[in-house]
Amino acid sequence: MSNQSIYQRAVKVIPGGVSRNTIFRYPHPFYVDKAKGSFITDIEGVKRIDFANNMASLIHGHANDKINNAVNEQLKKGTAYTMGSEIEVKYAELLNSRNPSFEKIRFVNSGTEAVMTMIKASRAYNGKFKIAKAEGTYHGTYDYAEISQTSNPTNWGNLDNPKSVPVVEGTPESVLNDVVIFPFNDLSRTIKILDQNADDISCVLIDLVPHRAGLFPAYDKYISEIYKWTRKNNALLLFDEVVTFRAYFSGAQEKYSVSPDLTALGKIIGGGFPIGAIAGKSEIMDVLNPRNKVLKHPHSGTFSANPISTIAGYTAMSMFDKSSVKKINSLADIAKKQIKEAINVADIPACITGLGSMFRIHLQNSPPTNARETYQDNNTKEIINDLLDYLFLNENIIMINTCTCMLSTSLTQKEIDRLSQALLNGFRIIKPKINKLIN
Amino acid sequence: MSNQSIYQRAVKVIPGGVSRNTIFRYPHPFYVDKAKGSFITDIEGVKRIDFANNMASLIHGHANDKINNAVNEQLKKGTAYTMGSEIEVKYAELLNSRNPSFEKIRFVNSGTEAVMTMIKASRAYNGKFKIAKAEGTYHGTYDYAEISQTSNPTNWGNLDNPKSVPVVEGTPESVLNDVVIFPFNDLSRTIKILDQNADDISCVLIDLVPHRAGLFPAYDKYISEIYKWTRKNNALLLFDEVVTFRAYFSGAQEKYSVSPDLTALGKIIGGGFPIGAIAGKSEIMDVLNPRNKVLKHPHSGTFSANPISTIAGYTAMSMFDKSSVKKINSLADIAKKQIKEAINVADIPACITGLGSMFRIHLQNSPPTNARETYQDNNTKEIINDLLDYLFLNENIIMINTCTCMLSTSLTQKEIDRLSQALLNGFRIIKPKINKLIN
Repeated sequence: MSNQSIYQRAVKVIPGGVSRNTIFRYPHPFYVDKAKGSFITDIEGVKRIDFANNMASLIHGHANDKINNAVNEQLKKGTAYTMGSEIEVKYAELLNSRNPSFEKIRFVNSGTEAVMTMIKASRAYNGKFKIAKAEGTYHGTYDYAEISQTSNPTNWGNLDNPKSVPVVEGTPESVLNDVVIFPFNDLSRTIKILDQNADDISCVLIDLVPHRAGLFPAYDKYISEIYKWTRKNNALLLFDEVVTFRAYFSGAQEKYSVSPDLTALGKIIGGGFPIGAIAGKSEIMDVLNPRNKVLKHPHSGTFSANPISTIAGYTAMSMFDKSSVKKINSLADIAKKQIKEAINVADIPACITGLGSMFRIHLQNSPPTNARETYQDNNTKEIINDLLDYLFLNENIIMINTCTCMLSTSLTQKEIDRLSQALLNGFRIIKPKINKLIN
Repeated sequence: MSNQSIYQRAVKVIPGGVSRNTIFRYPHPFYVDKAKGSFITDIEGVKRIDFANNMASLIHGHANDKINNAVNEQLKKGTAYTMGSEIEVKYAELLNSRNPSFEKIRFVNSGTEAVMTMIKASRAYNGKFKIAKAEGTYHGTYDYAEISQTSNPTNWGNLDNPKSVPVVEGTPESVLNDVVIFPFNDLSRTIKILDQNADDISCVLIDLVPHRAGLFPAYDKYISEIYKWTRKNNALLLFDEVVTFRAYFSGAQEKYSVSPDLTALGKIIGGGFPIGAIAGKSEIMDVLNPRNKVLKHPHSGTFSANPISTIAGYTAMSMFDKSSVKKINSLADIAKKQIKEAINVADIPACITGLGSMFRIHLQNSPPTNARETYQDNNTKEIINDLLDYLFLNENIIMINTCTCMLSTSLTQKEIDRLSQALLNGFRIIKPKINKLIN
């Protein structure tokens, strides 16, 4: 059995052979035999170090013993019922205790569902209908949340008023009209654009450290001023921390001066199993309360708060305590330092962005602060792909296809040393192509 | 620890104390200690027979040994990677082999995601933007799919042109305008309404046996004529078989003269774990193919096709073979027969609808064929709740809160006898209230 032979079967039954475009690579994806901690062995027996951790969702790496033991115990008792489970309550208590802005929480099945439910809750709460979001940021696949995630120089329009660009063909015009796009980290333009739509904006949706838009943290002042704007204009401030909750004990928002009204969670809070959640102010979350005479936001979900995802998440997040957060973030700091050294030694135009246990490498001299600065033309994309292919195939290192690492607590200095050495080797290999591009 | 004490903690951290309104009951939900096969024991030690099976999602009951063994083996190897798993391909092969209309398939994380992805795929394929759906049918929580699910006599409008009624407050007007509502099983009115919107309708979304709208099967001619209409008007026919796929080996659609373009799946195909899928014609599914030069429908999902949900689903569906389908459906036939006898003996106005392993009891003389005929006023709702409470609290029987049973293969004649006897007892208890209502 080879990776290629499995893929040949895959394309016969699945469009393009994959259910997730993120795992696709030319000429074919690779298939996992087994994984443990920081290491994945593919079905051809090649063992690689995993710096992607299923798109940032595994905070303790693969097949963690404590999580597996907890899941095993629950498996014997069943995985889903038309009744409650105490673990839902215990886990809600645990997550709410991590962040004072989480007064109430509700579980769903994915980050996409979390963002969708959060946006619908916002509309239900204030009765307004427009969503404001930053250009280039990824928030899952709900139409309103994905607009302009993939816009490019041919369609993104003037920076003073970025266009609403559909991700999926056939997106209704009305959705484009109901989404207001602003340039991330650009305070004056953002406020101006928000002002133009002040009467209709239900919520401003923010990813504080948007991976697809550069993984550069939002400026504190930028977020504070948006917060102020929402207070003045009867709008909610929503944070999408599906990816970024790993950055600090209370999420990336811990280091900001203001708190959001609602936060969407996902990824690491599932302990390796499908989950999503929205958390925030009681008064707003109450739109979901089935005990209310008028239930503004009826909502269910067959697998929401199932005891497997919640016990796995509870176990993972119990272990991801303050000292664990500190340790993994220190490791990331060391990694970034070593990679910067590799960039200097290789003498290529490159830089690193990121926060906490997340970092992304860009083939440009200064860190991009928003989506347009992050945008790569086809030539640069090709070089990035060369680098990622080299790392994957020759150095046995797995990174996310944006040249991003999302660390797990199972990683050690040894793997970081391997990463920085492998990157140095990779930088040297792509250097001639970069030079050609510059000259 | 009591059910009440857990709930008292729950309301402090979760709005109304539940993440799923379906598990809520007054004065509080009940919490599971353990479940096995057809039985659930709550944390106070009360053991009940489960005829709800997590809202129809467990085809083999709880903690099935074969599924647990398969999941255990996978757990040791990890639960999710930024790479592929062979089991995704194997499972795609298995599901596609069950139904000739499933040429290609793609996995997502829930029924809600499946319906959303299917609708977006339809728009991407034909570039049209309106969704036509039947009044009262439930298709998950994507705005376009949920319109008019909960409409009632005060807002549903004329039967010739049922109104688009939002489920969630603050639903954008444009969504209401982009959803066309028709009365289920009413051919002439449905075609007339479709005709009025022919230019704009991208797809007609159908649940062949809609649980919330009565669990009465669509007439074959009704579906054939809608199919013909879609052929004539450049629209797609979409089946939501998230619930109904259990009805026959190839889904409820097996017994219909026409096949849909796309089908949404979920519930039982996860083997007790979160999953969803869309399956259908290669040419249409190809909008999701990342190998295409123009990718019309970019789509990912952190946990889509994860190896746990797919191995559990693969194991469950392998066991749910043709003979297993036949057996469970025969058991349902016996159950319906016995319940009809109980209705006769108790001499109350009641009837049963359903298909395959699914059936629903209505407190009315003749089976409702659509949502309006299914609608219950508050008095009837109260009697239904009395019956369900009596069954749950006094007979230790769990049904879905619409008075519906969704059987599992772990049930035997013994439990069916208990069910029909318990229902007879229950019918006798609610009879005075029914009589009072009628007179």
